[in-house]
Amino acid sequence: MIFYDCHTAPSPRRARMFLAEKGLDVEAREVDLTKGEQLSPAFLELNPLGTVPVLVTDDGTALYENLAIATYLEATTPKPPLLGTTAEEKALVMLWNSLVDQQFAVPLMDAFRNSHPKMAGRALPGPESFEQVPELAARGKARVDLFYTRLEKQLQGREFLAIDAFSLADISAFVIVEFAGMLRMPIPEENTATRDWHGRVAERPSASV
Amino acid sequence: MIFYDCHTAPSPRRARMFLAEKGLDVEAREVDLTKGEQLSPAFLELNPLGTVPVLVTDDGTALYENLAIATYLEATTPKPPLLGTTAEEKALVMLWNSLVDQQFAVPLMDAFRNSHPKMAGRALPGPESFEQVPELAARGKARVDLFYTRLEKQLQGREFLAIDAFSLADISAFVIVEFAGMLRMPIPEENTATRDWHGRVAERPSASV
Repeated sequence: MIFYDCHTAPSPRRARMFLAEKGLDVEAREVDLTKGEQLSPAFLELNPLGTVPVLVTDDGTALYENLAIATYLEATTPKPPLLGTTAEEKALVMLWNSLVDQQFAVPLMDAFRNSHPKMAGRALPGPESFEQVPELAARGKARVDLFYTRLEKQLQGREFLAIDAFSLADISAFVIVEFAGMLRMPIPEENTATRDWHGRVAERPSASV
Repeated sequence: MIFYDCHTAPSPRRARMFLAEKGLDVEAREVDLTKGEQLSPAFLELNPLGTVPVLVTDDGTALYENLAIATYLEATTPKPPLLGTTAEEKALVMLWNSLVDQQFAVPLMDAFRNSHPKMAGRALPGPESFEQVPELAARGKARVDLFYTRLEKQLQGREFLAIDAFSLADISAFVIVEFAGMLRMPIPEENTATRDWHGRVAERPSASV
């Protein structure tokens, strides 16, 4: 397997953390997003979306989406389980992972990509250019605030986000929370359940890879 | 189990088609989106996002996301498999299902919700009100066109979208293609592989439930 990574971006960090939790040490290649390497013809041949992470399996299949990578690794390295074990656990991990993607990661990236001067003409990732839409930046920030409230409600009295065990949903939420912090949208001070949960996940060895 | 459905919306059709492919006949309750029933206090108690579909499992867990519902049903009713059987198949189904969601369903709903007069103040689903952003309607349409090209490329020489068997990815893509057609963004005339695939899926009994 070959893992196409980038240490400055949140999406590949999710896959990197998943690999670490599985105890897997995969050959990695760093893609420099600041130099636009993800849009080179060679990389677009591998992943037409021009995004990282990409995991190339031993038979040469390029998996260029976090959920596809997690699904593959869970099937080939089942322990420790990170996608749940019972039917309901599996469903709840998918539910919360989807909510994090749709209600938190997308709005956060909307807020970032539609406001940062370096992202002019890059409001969406990929080979096509899309202009910034200032209203989307404001909407993104408002939606991040809404999700922080939802997250706090869910985490009250819980050790982990989706089920009674650490899962992909925790990885996804943790990485997006950390990136939001870098973008000056940190966990609100009063959201103590979320802050405690963040502290617990941050102590895991996988949070430092 | 109780299935909260709505026959005028694309998202619940995806779950309905999945249930039909599994041969499951579940107690269903219609939620009238035109009357705003999804935003009633009773429904928001069940699903704080105010969206359909929702599947309530026998132990009372409310699964309010298509991928969570599919994951649950695949675990409890494994045959016929709709999420792949080998590790690579499972990953490819997730890959293409994610691409359909992010690159096709989201842009299509952006195009619809940010332009239709009835969607004023409803640019996003859910209990919170978001104003329409006209630039998002135009961007959504442009991205739907891009995805049609990607879909055609993938379907050339293939019977099904993600793997060599009918899967969740076909259901998701089919339902969004049909909704795009209703919104006057049909499959381009020259995309013959996509049109042939659409015809094959349309003949399945699950396409008519």
